[in-house]
Amino acid sequence: MRIDAIDFFYLAMPEILDIGDGSQDALLVRVCAGDHVGWGECEAAPLVSIASLVCPMSHSACKPVQASVLGQTIDSAADIRRIGDLVRANSLDLLQADHTLSGIDIALWDLLGRRFEEPVWKLLGYGQSCAKTPYASVLFGGTPEITLQKAQRIQSQGFRAAKFGWGPFGLGSVADDDAQLHAAREGLGPDGILLIDAGTVWNTDIAAARARLRTLKEVSATWLEEPFVSGALAEYHALSLESGPVGLAGGEGCHNVHMAKHMIDHGGLKYVQIDAGRIGGITIAKDVADYAVNKGVTYVNHTFTSNLALSASLQPFAGLELHVICEFPTELKSLAVAMTKNHITPDANGQVRAPDAPGLGIEPDLAGIEPYLVDAEIRVGSQVLYRTPVLSR
Amino acid sequence: MRIDAIDFFYLAMPEILDIGDGSQDALLVRVCAGDHVGWGECEAAPLVSIASLVCPMSHSACKPVQASVLGQTIDSAADIRRIGDLVRANSLDLLQADHTLSGIDIALWDLLGRRFEEPVWKLLGYGQSCAKTPYASVLFGGTPEITLQKAQRIQSQGFRAAKFGWGPFGLGSVADDDAQLHAAREGLGPDGILLIDAGTVWNTDIAAARARLRTLKEVSATWLEEPFVSGALAEYHALSLESGPVGLAGGEGCHNVHMAKHMIDHGGLKYVQIDAGRIGGITIAKDVADYAVNKGVTYVNHTFTSNLALSASLQPFAGLELHVICEFPTELKSLAVAMTKNHITPDANGQVRAPDAPGLGIEPDLAGIEPYLVDAEIRVGSQVLYRTPVLSR
Repeated sequence: MRIDAIDFFYLAMPEILDIGDGSQDALLVRVCAGDHVGWGECEAAPLVSIASLVCPMSHSACKPVQASVLGQTIDSAADIRRIGDLVRANSLDLLQADHTLSGIDIALWDLLGRRFEEPVWKLLGYGQSCAKTPYASVLFGGTPEITLQKAQRIQSQGFRAAKFGWGPFGLGSVADDDAQLHAAREGLGPDGILLIDAGTVWNTDIAAARARLRTLKEVSATWLEEPFVSGALAEYHALSLESGPVGLAGGEGCHNVHMAKHMIDHGGLKYVQIDAGRIGGITIAKDVADYAVNKGVTYVNHTFTSNLALSASLQPFAGLELHVICEFPTELKSLAVAMTKNHITPDANGQVRAPDAPGLGIEPDLAGIEPYLVDAEIRVGSQVLYRTPVLSR
Repeated sequence: MRIDAIDFFYLAMPEILDIGDGSQDALLVRVCAGDHVGWGECEAAPLVSIASLVCPMSHSACKPVQASVLGQTIDSAADIRRIGDLVRANSLDLLQADHTLSGIDIALWDLLGRRFEEPVWKLLGYGQSCAKTPYASVLFGGTPEITLQKAQRIQSQGFRAAKFGWGPFGLGSVADDDAQLHAAREGLGPDGILLIDAGTVWNTDIAAARARLRTLKEVSATWLEEPFVSGALAEYHALSLESGPVGLAGGEGCHNVHMAKHMIDHGGLKYVQIDAGRIGGITIAKDVADYAVNKGVTYVNHTFTSNLALSASLQPFAGLELHVICEFPTELKSLAVAMTKNHITPDANGQVRAPDAPGLGIEPDLAGIEPYLVDAEIRVGSQVLYRTPVLSR
């Protein structure tokens, strides 16, 4: 079976707001091989990943991503890894390639799973899809009062865990942040699992992060996520020596297996957060999960987009019984909801699982997607390299 | 003075060959602020960097690069760093952004230097532009005989150093590579500085690299470059323990200061090779040079394109007297030669220096560029986000 077509669909809300909400646009990927179809999603910046799929070759190690995918045989998991290795070699100098490959890799796993009528997590070697404790992932409110209300709403919805991030956090005074942290804890109640996401706001400033540790410990935050940019290993490590019960979390910025390993080996992480839509797909995310298990670090998915992306991000650690926390976006824009016919929802115990259904177990809703489809075109010389493809086929 | 315009010009040879020659296309950058102009260059994949300059915003941490540059004040080196920090924060989730920023940062340094009538290396704090020993950077021949001839030609041209890389090296047997290595040494003569570039061919395979060490030592190679992909820190480190007098070189794949620091701190590098057109520009390249000095590692430029890019890559270590080896492409395609009115050439002693002239000291040749200018257009919805700009203004 050979890969006949790769189609990238750029979806967007009518208006994109200048807020930390990654569900405002999406890059949906469809891969076709014979009669078989698979779906995936790339995180983020759709136009740039489209350009890297179709761009002209610069030289032998800077080819468009599609050059290493179209026409390839796809019959097994080994083929998916082989195709990824090809992309990494042939697009070595094309920085965006890892993000572009991610959506294709996800679609290839979906395609294989549908073809063999097995969930992706089974193809990955797991015997079961374990229950995960979803955390409601929301932005800090503009004021502590709004954060309090958000936390109360999350608690009343039955979530046992919540993550607050971005918004004003880290941008103002330490006292401002302390008020936000106490509001989140108050709204969530004493037993809720409280996670804090600094969104790289302190870049590499250890002192700024350190100044928040006392209150983070007071409110029993389980983790502090991304105090620094991905790759600031020395800074992560230094902070980890002082953070005590507040574990450091990070890794969403990693776009290959090496970067994630460095965060684990040299950054003092307690939680490694991987976005399958960025790191090179489910294949590489699973490599990181295996490595994390081996190193005693907890694997967590990073997801801020659709339920297709959520299922993809759950697969790599679906069978890890002790890695229970999972990111679960709860403030999705209508686009991210409309994209799929079915959704992953908490069960009676408030827990979620990667679907027990072929592939990713998520069905794209073509009619739901249509209103959000962006019409785009890229022309180089007399050649149209990209034009928004037709959804139905 | 505010930045009024950023223009990206995509240049390409009529035909792009599937070989490891990075001079086959280029992305020339022009930044205008009032009456002042500066020129830079991004490495590589022009169309993708263009897309990341102009793409629609995805969310608050995924904005097009131009959003953080246009309209900004540019009066000092501190402004260049501030603008770079803005891009890194506002385009955090846009993977290609570091490459895109690189050309803009270079152009801003050129602009400041022209305005203040100072070479960039002076603005960077160096008192002099030291002589560097250029190595002729060429591809291995298809056979040892062709490699021998290339090496003899380089020797007869007066070069004291030569680097051979890519081509068949590492793809065949150990014996094949041994023959190539002996041919290079023979052609170069016993005193020439011989550098070998494996071009990441062994990915993370330590055994494959180890199998070449004996002959690399026999032919007195000064360095072995990129036996593995950038970021394979554990593999670099393991090989460095066995490579003895053959120093490991790498770093061209780094696209931020952290990755370069990791290569130095954890990879056992003896030479760190930085492309100012990829790592985030001259600003970040200079940060790496400072760090390398501090850690006792030798800084080397990585350059495989025009003399504009060469000058940009020389500036960050121009004043470092003990860091003498410099990459000097000698098989440039006509495009890369035609791009500039003046060129950096070896002096009577066979050495080169960053120009002692305002800015980068390299004048783009608009008439020379014109035949290579690629006509491109990117449209999203009803908006044309990019159309090849006019060269003359």
